[in-house]
Amino acid sequence: MSSSELPTINMGGKQRYYEPAPQDIDVDNFRKVITSRRSVRKFTSKPIPQAVLDDCLDMAMLAPCSSGLQPWEFYVVRSADKKAKLVKACMSQWAAKSAAELIVCVARTDRVNEFSRQMLREWPMPDVPPLVRRYYQLIPYNYTPGPMNSLAYLKKAAFGIGGLVAPVPRGPYTRAEVEAWAIKSTALACENLVLAFRAHGFDTCMMEGFDAARVSKMLKLDSNAIPVMVIGAGERTDDGVFWPQIRFDRSLFVHEV
Amino acid sequence: MSSSELPTINMGGKQRYYEPAPQDIDVDNFRKVITSRRSVRKFTSKPIPQAVLDDCLDMAMLAPCSSGLQPWEFYVVRSADKKAKLVKACMSQWAAKSAAELIVCVARTDRVNEFSRQMLREWPMPDVPPLVRRYYQLIPYNYTPGPMNSLAYLKKAAFGIGGLVAPVPRGPYTRAEVEAWAIKSTALACENLVLAFRAHGFDTCMMEGFDAARVSKMLKLDSNAIPVMVIGAGERTDDGVFWPQIRFDRSLFVHEV
Repeated sequence: MSSSELPTINMGGKQRYYEPAPQDIDVDNFRKVITSRRSVRKFTSKPIPQAVLDDCLDMAMLAPCSSGLQPWEFYVVRSADKKAKLVKACMSQWAAKSAAELIVCVARTDRVNEFSRQMLREWPMPDVPPLVRRYYQLIPYNYTPGPMNSLAYLKKAAFGIGGLVAPVPRGPYTRAEVEAWAIKSTALACENLVLAFRAHGFDTCMMEGFDAARVSKMLKLDSNAIPVMVIGAGERTDDGVFWPQIRFDRSLFVHEV
Repeated sequence: MSSSELPTINMGGKQRYYEPAPQDIDVDNFRKVITSRRSVRKFTSKPIPQAVLDDCLDMAMLAPCSSGLQPWEFYVVRSADKKAKLVKACMSQWAAKSAAELIVCVARTDRVNEFSRQMLREWPMPDVPPLVRRYYQLIPYNYTPGPMNSLAYLKKAAFGIGGLVAPVPRGPYTRAEVEAWAIKSTALACENLVLAFRAHGFDTCMMEGFDAARVSKMLKLDSNAIPVMVIGAGERTDDGVFWPQIRFDRSLFVHEV
């Protein structure tokens, strides 16, 4: 859509971007996606059509992400040799062995600068608002921990002092914090991905207990690319869900304060 | 459901738990939830009915979680005093100021032992499979970094040596890794939460740029409880979405190998 075609609405004399919410969403149908999503540990041999896989990946990448910086990557492992290695790295569990597709979901910490510039180049409106421009010009400084976290601790100290008098953001500064930042947005996309497969009639298993060192080596990932999980996907067998879902009492988790 | 009522299916002479997938999911309805979810930065004064809020939180907690250990917590901030403080901690941005509900989503690293025991007590089938029992008996050892990560580095060394000859899990061992583990599952639940609000006709903004120190103090969280994000929720205003969604070319993110 060219920016001149953007839908707008008049708000107090100013033209604003206008994206109304659809009114015809069936929440019961959505709830069925959520409740029927289970970790499936055995898949049939039915393949996932390429169009379904593509649609699911596209829906994954519509997840929200911190500052719009899409710190995610998805490796669809197809070659027989790599797939065999990946199954082994997943401890040869059934969820990996029987999966029609295996997708390694990766969080990247090293594309903040590149993507901040790209964001300004591809901004979808005629003018980049000055505050937005400043934001993306400053962002790279936020996500740079420096050697041995030196910059991170400097920033922590500075914001710690500032924080005595007024609210301040508290990170991500250290390398571990920047990694957690990227993992967080990537997990949001992973959740979209498994729900999208479910909505298409397929199932998934999120695997975290895998040999990340072997996976990184196989995919030639450097230390700025963190394998977050491996998702096995396919059609569930009749005995593919091993037990009923277990959720403890909600009072352990929800607090009104 | 008492375990004697569990649905089962005969597989090669053995009775297995049976949870078939529903066949009547409308993928276009689901896609509408995904595509219409935007970060909404201005909300109307319309309140969210309690039943809707509860349903959304329940759907959030049906997200997958690592080893079923539900490391999440949701603080629905309602008291006027706390809400004012939370808005300030969110840098007084519109998405917080105008939200009908503000929910602090927290990742907990300190309930692994307790929940592993509870898992075995509340196991939903007549007998806990021996492998499952062993798994939950051993889990606490996996997630204990020890003082100054001492146990973590011991385990890293041991598994590093083991990993020379066979695939091994590579964590979470250090405190930062255990935190990332809890943040990951909590993010999955957060994504369910925002999608559930969307399916109910409401909108959200995930906020990460907040003063986590002030939020922790206000909610009396110790260092084992990490505020992952603040979610503002409500009904979008006509100018509540500030610009079209920006996603870079998928070839930057999806790789077939």
